[in-house]
Amino acid sequence: MAKDKVKKAPRPKAETPRGFRDYFGAEVVARQEMLRTITDVYRHWGFDPLESSAVETVEALGKFLPDVDRPNEGVFAWQDEDETWLALRYDLTAPLARVYAQHRRDLPNPYRRYAVGPVWRNEKPGPGRFRQFYQCDADTVGSGSVAADAEICAMLAETLEALGLADQFVIRINNRKVLNGVMEAAGLAGDDHAHARGIVLRAIDKLDRLGTLGVYALLGEGRKDESGDFTKGAGLASEQAGLIMGFVEARGDTGAATCARLGELVGASATGREGVEELAQIAELLDGLGIGAEKAIIDPSVVRGLGYYTGPVFEAELTFEITDEDGNIRQFGSVAGGGRYDDLVKRFTGESVPATGISIGVDRLLAALRAKGRVATGEEAGPVIVLVMDRGDMASPMRMAAELRAAGIRAEVALGAANMGKQLKYADKRQSPVAVIQGSDEREQGVVTLKDLALGARLAAEIETREEWTAQPAQVSVPRDRLVEEVRAMLARAQGEGAP
Amino acid sequence: MAKDKVKKAPRPKAETPRGFRDYFGAEVVARQEMLRTITDVYRHWGFDPLESSAVETVEALGKFLPDVDRPNEGVFAWQDEDETWLALRYDLTAPLARVYAQHRRDLPNPYRRYAVGPVWRNEKPGPGRFRQFYQCDADTVGSGSVAADAEICAMLAETLEALGLADQFVIRINNRKVLNGVMEAAGLAGDDHAHARGIVLRAIDKLDRLGTLGVYALLGEGRKDESGDFTKGAGLASEQAGLIMGFVEARGDTGAATCARLGELVGASATGREGVEELAQIAELLDGLGIGAEKAIIDPSVVRGLGYYTGPVFEAELTFEITDEDGNIRQFGSVAGGGRYDDLVKRFTGESVPATGISIGVDRLLAALRAKGRVATGEEAGPVIVLVMDRGDMASPMRMAAELRAAGIRAEVALGAANMGKQLKYADKRQSPVAVIQGSDEREQGVVTLKDLALGARLAAEIETREEWTAQPAQVSVPRDRLVEEVRAMLARAQGEGAP
Repeated sequence: MAKDKVKKAPRPKAETPRGFRDYFGAEVVARQEMLRTITDVYRHWGFDPLESSAVETVEALGKFLPDVDRPNEGVFAWQDEDETWLALRYDLTAPLARVYAQHRRDLPNPYRRYAVGPVWRNEKPGPGRFRQFYQCDADTVGSGSVAADAEICAMLAETLEALGLADQFVIRINNRKVLNGVMEAAGLAGDDHAHARGIVLRAIDKLDRLGTLGVYALLGEGRKDESGDFTKGAGLASEQAGLIMGFVEARGDTGAATCARLGELVGASATGREGVEELAQIAELLDGLGIGAEKAIIDPSVVRGLGYYTGPVFEAELTFEITDEDGNIRQFGSVAGGGRYDDLVKRFTGESVPATGISIGVDRLLAALRAKGRVATGEEAGPVIVLVMDRGDMASPMRMAAELRAAGIRAEVALGAANMGKQLKYADKRQSPVAVIQGSDEREQGVVTLKDLALGARLAAEIETREEWTAQPAQVSVPRDRLVEEVRAMLARAQGEGAP
Repeated sequence: MAKDKVKKAPRPKAETPRGFRDYFGAEVVARQEMLRTITDVYRHWGFDPLESSAVETVEALGKFLPDVDRPNEGVFAWQDEDETWLALRYDLTAPLARVYAQHRRDLPNPYRRYAVGPVWRNEKPGPGRFRQFYQCDADTVGSGSVAADAEICAMLAETLEALGLADQFVIRINNRKVLNGVMEAAGLAGDDHAHARGIVLRAIDKLDRLGTLGVYALLGEGRKDESGDFTKGAGLASEQAGLIMGFVEARGDTGAATCARLGELVGASATGREGVEELAQIAELLDGLGIGAEKAIIDPSVVRGLGYYTGPVFEAELTFEITDEDGNIRQFGSVAGGGRYDDLVKRFTGESVPATGISIGVDRLLAALRAKGRVATGEEAGPVIVLVMDRGDMASPMRMAAELRAAGIRAEVALGAANMGKQLKYADKRQSPVAVIQGSDEREQGVVTLKDLALGARLAAEIETREEWTAQPAQVSVPRDRLVEEVRAMLARAQGEGAP
C-alpha cells in the first residue's frame, strides 16, 4: 500500500537545500587534518574537548545572535511536541555558556575547553556564504586574569605555527575598556547613549572596508554608499567624533607608544586606564613567552563587532598576499578572532563569570593553507586499483588487493564495469597511481602486469610517436609472488618523479 | 533598550533539551580515536569520506524512515522562508542516495564512500535513548556484484580487528532473496500479500526477544504480550507459518549444510535460488580472504528490520559476555549491520542503482570497547599544573608551562584561585600527575618544587602516621634549570608505578 503511494508521487529533486553544501573526499580529509593539528595544540595547553548537542532550546540561546548588524540573521527553529521551541546552535559560545551554567559544580575552575563542529545560520545564502559551516573555538571560563587572555593569544600563535604559518601572521590586540574609556571621555557614558555606542562600535569595525572618512561619516550624521543608500550615523559632535578617530588611529611605532597615547585619550576614565594597563600586561606576558611586539600588535582599530565583549579583544591576521577575485593583490587578512566576555553565563545564573576565548574561521584558514600549498589539493594519489579480468573469479583480485593493504598500501578492486578500458578509466577517475592486471594467460604463467598510471599519463602528454610509446616502461610484467614489492617500488618511483 | 528587555526577562534554564546530551573531555577523545581507527581502515580499502549537509529537504528524505515499526518516529522539520520543508537527517543512507543522484556524473562508478556524523530522530527520549547520536557508515554505490557485499563484510571484520576485537566477533549473513523465495513458496508473493510480508519480516527480526513461539504466534493470528496488549499477526495458515519457521531455523552445522537446506525451502522460486547462490558465493569470497565459516556465519534468522534491503543482509555481533543491568550474563550482541538496497537512488532518477553498505552503532561499539578496557575510561592523567604563587608575576609560571609544552609535556597554569590549597584541589580535579610550585624564596634560590600528585594520593591512602608522611618523596626540590628533565622523570615514575 505504502509502496503504491511512493510510486505515484512525483520524483523528488536530488538537491542540497538552498545555502547548504556537501564536502567530498580530499576536502573532508584536509579539514580534518587541519582541525586535528589545531586541537592537538589545544589539548597540549590543557584544554579539554566539549561536544554539546547541536540542538538547544531557543530560551537557552537567548538574544545573543552574534551580529546585531544583520537583522535578517536568525536561527533554524521549530516547536517540540511539548511546545518547547528548539533551534540549531548558531555558534559554539552560547552553548558553552549553557553547558557551564548547567554543570559548573562538576567542572574545574577555570574550565578550559575547545569545541569543533558545525553551526547553522538562518540567513540569506550567497556566493561563499553558507547556512551551515564549521567553527573551532577555545575558551577559558572562570578566570578574570589577563594571563588567561595572553594564554589564548599565545596558544593561537602556536597553533598557526603548527600549521606551517610561522612568520606569516600577526595577532592584533585591543581592549574594549579603552574604547569605553574614550567614549566616557567623549561624554557617551550611560544607558542614554547605548544606541550611539553601538553605532560607533560597528562603524569602527568597518574601518578596513570604509576607510577613515567613511567611519568618520558614520560617527556623525551618516553616510551614503556607492549604491546611494544612506546609513544613519551616531550623530556625534565633531569633537566627540575626533576623539573616537584619535583612538582608532592611536597605533604608534611600539606597543609602549600606543599605550602612552591611549592613556592620554582616556583621560580620567578609570575603566579606560584599567584597559590600557591590561593591554600593557598582555604585551609583557606575551613577550615573556617569546611573542614580541612584531607579532603581537596593540592595535586600537580592532574592535570586533560582537556586542558581548567586555575587555581584551584579539584577531589573528595572515600577512601574506593573495590575488583576490577582482585581480587585486591584498593581504590574506583575518582567520581568527575573539576576546573577553564576562556576562554570558550571568544570563543563566545571575552571577557574572569571567570568560575569554578565540574562534577560528575554519573555511578561511583552510583556504589560506591551500593558498600556501600546506594541504593536499585533492590531487593526492588515489588507491592502487586491481582490475577484474574474469567476472567469474572475483576471489583472485580481492586477494591481491588484500595483500597490498596488509602491506600498508591503499588498494581496491575495480568492481564496476566488466570492460577493461572502462576499468582503466575508473582508475583514472580515482587518480590511481598503479593498476594491477592479471588475465587468465598471466595467471597460468604465475605473473601479473603492473601499469604505472602516473607515468603513463605523463608519457601520453610528452610522447609523439607510437614507437616511443610502446618502448616505454609504463607497464611491466612481474612474478605474482613479488606483487607487493613491485607495486611498492613503482609507487616509490612515481612519488619521486612526481615531486617538484 | 534591548539590554533592558534582557534584564527584565526571567532567567533561562540552563538545560540540554529533552533527549539530547553533551559529551565531555575523555568521552569525546575516546569516540574520536575509535572513529579514526575505523575510518583509517575504510580509507585503506579505497573508501572516500563524504560529509553531506546535516539539513535535507523533507522531499529528498522522503518516506524512508528507517523503521516503520515505530510510527512515532519522525524527523525534526521546519519550513524555510521560501516554504520548502527542511529537516535534520535521520540517518546517513538517505543523504547518500540524494548526493549520489545529484552528483552521479562526477562520481566514480562504483562510488565507495564512508560517512561519520550525528543524525537526529524526533522520537520519545528514554533511558539510553537519545534524539541525537552518531552513525558511521560505509557504502558501495553502483556495483551489483556480491563481491561488493563480501568486501563490506571483510572490511567490517578488519575494522573490528583493528579495534582490538579479533576473535571476539562473528559476522552473520543472510539474503532477503532467500526469504522472498520462501515466501513465494508459501504463496505470499505479489502485491496483495505485501502487508503480510511486512509483518513476517518484523516478526523474524524479533526472534531474539520473543523466541520461536512468539514469532510463530505473530506469523499466525497474533500475540498477547506480558502487559496484555495484543499484536495482530500476519494471519498465515499453519503450513505457511511452518515453512517460514523452517527458514528461520535453517542454520546447519556448516555454511554448505545451511545453503542445502535453504535450497530445499525455496523450492522452485528463481529469486530464492539466486539468493542461496549469492550466499554461497559470499561465503567463498570471504573464505578466500581468510574469513572462514567460524567467523562469517550464514544465519537465516538475521533479516534486519528495514524494508529497503533487497539482497544480502549482514550483522556483526560481539561474542564476549557482559553482565546486563538486570545482573544477567549475556553476549554483548550486535554492533553493526547493513545489507544491499538497490532502490534508494531510483526514487530520484527512475533508474535502479545497486548499493550495499554497513552502519556501525557508534555508541554501542564504544561501550563494547570500554567493557574490554580498550579505551581510556576518563581516568587518564591530566596535564601538569604550574601553580601561581604570586599573582603579580604571572610571567614565571606561564614560562615554565611553555617550557614543559615545548618538551612535549601537556601543561597548564592554575589560573583560578589565589589560594594554594584551592589550586592543588584544582590540580586534583584535573587529574594532574605533577604540580610545579615556585614561591618567592624558591625563585631567589633558583629552585622549584615538584609535587608527585599521583604518588601523593596513593600515599595518603596507605600511610598511617605523620612521620611516615613527611619522610615520603612525594615532593622534591630541583634546580629551576632542570625543570623539564625532573618533571619528565617524575611522569615516567608515575606511569611505571601506576601501571597494573
